[in-house]
Amino acid sequence: MKIIGTAMAPNPRRVRIFLAEKGVTVEFEEHDLMLEAFKTPQFTAINPWQRVPLLQLDDGRTIAESVAICRYFEEIKPDPPLFGVGAYGKAAVEMWNRRVELGLFAAVAHVFRHLHPKMAHLEVPQVTAWGEVNKGKAVIELERLDSALALSRFIAGDSFSIADITLHVAIEFMKPAKLPPPAGYAHIMRWHGEVSARPSTKP
Amino acid sequence: MKIIGTAMAPNPRRVRIFLAEKGVTVEFEEHDLMLEAFKTPQFTAINPWQRVPLLQLDDGRTIAESVAICRYFEEIKPDPPLFGVGAYGKAAVEMWNRRVELGLFAAVAHVFRHLHPKMAHLEVPQVTAWGEVNKGKAVIELERLDSALALSRFIAGDSFSIADITLHVAIEFMKPAKLPPPAGYAHIMRWHGEVSARPSTKP
Repeated sequence: MKIIGTAMAPNPRRVRIFLAEKGVTVEFEEHDLMLEAFKTPQFTAINPWQRVPLLQLDDGRTIAESVAICRYFEEIKPDPPLFGVGAYGKAAVEMWNRRVELGLFAAVAHVFRHLHPKMAHLEVPQVTAWGEVNKGKAVIELERLDSALALSRFIAGDSFSIADITLHVAIEFMKPAKLPPPAGYAHIMRWHGEVSARPSTKP
Repeated sequence: MKIIGTAMAPNPRRVRIFLAEKGVTVEFEEHDLMLEAFKTPQFTAINPWQRVPLLQLDDGRTIAESVAICRYFEEIKPDPPLFGVGAYGKAAVEMWNRRVELGLFAAVAHVFRHLHPKMAHLEVPQVTAWGEVNKGKAVIELERLDSALALSRFIAGDSFSIADITLHVAIEFMKPAKLPPPAGYAHIMRWHGEVSARPSTKP
């Protein structure tokens, strides 16, 4: 099997960190996202949504969407569990992963996609006003997440989970999006220091 | 336990359909979403993200986010499985649920939230240009989904899944968003006819 992706793009990075936490090695086939390699007819035939990462199994079947790829590996290698344990634990990880992804991650992505000049040929049309509004949304999300991290070691509770991976990548994504670093959020900084020290998150 | 929600809002509706498919009865506590009941300090203390539905367990713990609530019930009542079966099947449902939710569902929601006058006090500020751009994004998503439904009975394959629920609610959401009905998409219409006939999707 192999994963088609881009070295440092946020979503492929989520899968890389997840696999490193699992201790699973999968070949990555690198492409430059900026070159529109994923808009070719060949790639569109495999993934009509034209997104990476994409997992290709040895039998030719494919799985797109980073969280779906992670879930595949959670199923074939359950330890360590990164999607939670038990009914409440699994629901809590799902909740937190969604809060982070639909909240901070989405806001930062909109800022990047709608305001960065490099994205003009990929995000058509860029809506400047929407990019600007998302700067404020990102601040609201940081405040909510900081309050949550005041109460628990990791974002979904006592254990590291995929929700921490999503949050880590969202925080790192703030730099290319030209958002100010979250230095004023003490609990996020405490958490970020701990997560950044994990070998899985090293570049 | 009980679920705090709003009768016909899209996300609570996803949970209602899911529970009906499972044959599970849970008390719904109705609130009017438009009245900003979810922005009160009381509700914000329970869910800082100020969103419904919210599941409240008998021991007081809560789960927010529709898909997380559905996953809780998938764990405590696995049959019929609505999140897929086996590693590939579960990953495929996750992939399709995300494609629908981050694609069509999000596009329709942006149209509704940024263009509907009723949403002016909840979506602040409304960005008209962003609402308009999402009309085009919705069309692109409908085309992709129509092509997918040409190949399988349900969106994630041979079995009805949570991805079909998300798609059904997204299609129904097009009406309040004032988007034209998807009458020109033969495979979507075939699928929509079948899903609309399920007792779970009756209003």
